[in-house]
Amino acid sequence: MTFYAKLDRASLEKEYQTLLNAYNEYKTKGLSLDMSRGKPGSDQLDLSQGMLSLLESADSCYSEKGADYRNYGILDGITEAKKLFADILDLPAENIIVCGNSSLNLMYDAVVRCMLYGAGKGLTPWVKQGQVKFLCPAPGYDRHFAICQSLGIDMITVPMTKDGPDMDVVERLVASDESIKGIWCVPKYSNPEGVTYSEETVRRFARLKPAAKDFRVFWDNAYVIHDLYDEGDVLLNLQKEVAGGANEDMVYEFTSTSKVSFPGSGVACVASSAANIAFIKSVMTVQTIGFDKLNMLRHVKFFGDIDGVKRHMKLHADVMRPKFEAVLSLFDKELAPYGIADWTTPRGGYFISLNVPNGCAKRVFQLMKEAGVVMTSAGATFPYGNDPDDKNLRIAPTYPPLAEIKLAAEILVICVRLAALEKYLAE
Amino acid sequence: MTFYAKLDRASLEKEYQTLLNAYNEYKTKGLSLDMSRGKPGSDQLDLSQGMLSLLESADSCYSEKGADYRNYGILDGITEAKKLFADILDLPAENIIVCGNSSLNLMYDAVVRCMLYGAGKGLTPWVKQGQVKFLCPAPGYDRHFAICQSLGIDMITVPMTKDGPDMDVVERLVASDESIKGIWCVPKYSNPEGVTYSEETVRRFARLKPAAKDFRVFWDNAYVIHDLYDEGDVLLNLQKEVAGGANEDMVYEFTSTSKVSFPGSGVACVASSAANIAFIKSVMTVQTIGFDKLNMLRHVKFFGDIDGVKRHMKLHADVMRPKFEAVLSLFDKELAPYGIADWTTPRGGYFISLNVPNGCAKRVFQLMKEAGVVMTSAGATFPYGNDPDDKNLRIAPTYPPLAEIKLAAEILVICVRLAALEKYLAE
Repeated sequence: MTFYAKLDRASLEKEYQTLLNAYNEYKTKGLSLDMSRGKPGSDQLDLSQGMLSLLESADSCYSEKGADYRNYGILDGITEAKKLFADILDLPAENIIVCGNSSLNLMYDAVVRCMLYGAGKGLTPWVKQGQVKFLCPAPGYDRHFAICQSLGIDMITVPMTKDGPDMDVVERLVASDESIKGIWCVPKYSNPEGVTYSEETVRRFARLKPAAKDFRVFWDNAYVIHDLYDEGDVLLNLQKEVAGGANEDMVYEFTSTSKVSFPGSGVACVASSAANIAFIKSVMTVQTIGFDKLNMLRHVKFFGDIDGVKRHMKLHADVMRPKFEAVLSLFDKELAPYGIADWTTPRGGYFISLNVPNGCAKRVFQLMKEAGVVMTSAGATFPYGNDPDDKNLRIAPTYPPLAEIKLAAEILVICVRLAALEKYLAE
Repeated sequence: MTFYAKLDRASLEKEYQTLLNAYNEYKTKGLSLDMSRGKPGSDQLDLSQGMLSLLESADSCYSEKGADYRNYGILDGITEAKKLFADILDLPAENIIVCGNSSLNLMYDAVVRCMLYGAGKGLTPWVKQGQVKFLCPAPGYDRHFAICQSLGIDMITVPMTKDGPDMDVVERLVASDESIKGIWCVPKYSNPEGVTYSEETVRRFARLKPAAKDFRVFWDNAYVIHDLYDEGDVLLNLQKEVAGGANEDMVYEFTSTSKVSFPGSGVACVASSAANIAFIKSVMTVQTIGFDKLNMLRHVKFFGDIDGVKRHMKLHADVMRPKFEAVLSLFDKELAPYGIADWTTPRGGYFISLNVPNGCAKRVFQLMKEAGVVMTSAGATFPYGNDPDDKNLRIAPTYPPLAEIKLAAEILVICVRLAALEKYLAE
């Protein structure tokens, strides 16, 4: 045990020199590695290759009832795909609209719809209600925050706990401020911490008493079936909790097959109350004639049913698990002894969240960059890209091959130690 | 020649009785025909079936430079698809963003973007400029009008001529009213008349002097390559006309392969000036990570190049031409002699526009419905669904098989004559 905090200056300097030599060694290799984005590796994409040759004959493109899925029509998605997503989300098929390739686009559209039309029938558009605000549990997903920033929605950071967002803060804020119209949530295997909201957290969401009657929870269930282990985290079903109650229309839920089949060529859906679904469709029918039904059909034919999807997700897990474990075991070995960092050990999703000493995240990012490893920008996991403590880094271990992710992690632990030592030595 | 206008009452009554008998004969058949929407027939869809089995191997999903099109990335579309659309639209590839499955969605998004962000960098969002208005050449495309109505944009009807919109009206209005922010155009084989804007019309568009500096022409080039005959109409390239001039940023152009490959499973694009493309991308990057690149690739591999697309369009024309000609020859034979209707004879696109005596369109629609034939609602071709003369009907002859479209047209000419006779007899 050599906690850096307990070392004297001479020992710190010696440690720094040793690590600097090792760092410079890596630097000479001219590496080009990327652990920045939550992308599946190409071996994961190969798992779904068979999906791309399932519609060879015209006959294979018809529904059981004879609808030609190659033609226009069916705004809210084909029945078979609704059923599949219903089983994935454990919700009735009639509460689901199956759409295009991007759940992010559905979330963006949902916010835009609230701004221009209001959050539901008879509700005032947000653009006519002055400045509106969103709660942003952080660390969180940078693209959620980007939607708010782009549309001029003020963001209020809410701390994350091991059970999800700090619900004391959430409850107090939504109850007291009518201009707070939404909250971004990745409730299972959250981006970037891999936290699954506890039962109590979900129940407290269900019981929220928002001052704004058009307050909406943006429930981005991106990793609903993305377990790394046979025993996955269990998330309480928020929509079932609110069904039939005062908050029935409070939740927009989103998911997609981006990390099930192909990112960019998957299928996304939105799920909500009957009233919300009807309202969304009333706007959507102006926006488009319909989404890509052939791609929906491809997915249904390839997976068959929810069991097929689950079997498929185990194949993904088999590829991803060693990458997560490689990073985590290196953290245990090369970071834990020095008392300078903490991190999450997610049982699913696409990310590991790493906290380095305050004021060191940007420096680690910079050191990594100079050694040829691209990370998610320090700060990206906070609203406005501003991590007040400059301590959080998001690790995305899935895209590079295992050997590369190991190498990147080796460099990362050195960079974290270097940055920590620089800080101690400067104090 | 028995122009109804020249017949005496007794002859009109006799004619009416004869036609009513014929009509009732059809009515007893319990028909169920649909000539309401511009949908390709299933035999047209079969032409592209081969596209659905081109990506069998993982190797086939990579770009020449090694990009894995199955994964995230490439916001503005794959290079190969940009090139193809560039050739289709006769524009530089860098002025094009290749997107998802629906050009309607791109148009909707374009209007929404103008409302929330402004029409370009530094321009004021339309939602902050009070009531805004669009010019709507009519008869026109109902879904364009629906976008305006849905978003609360006032619509001003502009008469169509055989050369396109009445440019005297367009020029006067846009020059005098700063709240006029846009105009909807289907410049080639217009919906529903099949009119291709003349060179002079396009030049007058290029030279418009809008009072609003954020005025935009929504140039829906849906039928850019949709000729029915070897010799197609020629449309002057508006974007080339405005390039480098004061109106360089005035045009948003849209097209798609919805009626080239599969409606709903095709690829759509937006084309505009460099400044507009940059601005659109700056918003789009918040909206989505990217569109379906595999579907773009499918299209590129199937068609090869613009010549492949053109060959393919001739196969479509071979299926569609007999349907158009069946309707038109029946109009010549069964409507022309009575001096009660006029219609267009398009050389491409998906529609025929039929004008019946003033006040008779809704009645024709009703008679058709009662005989089991669904038509596009009377009035749909005008803003707010309100045809001031109640005379225009849109005929969509492509979806039903030839025998059915012949039958539907036989009933249609009878209904038109009946409605006209009812009118004469009531006067």
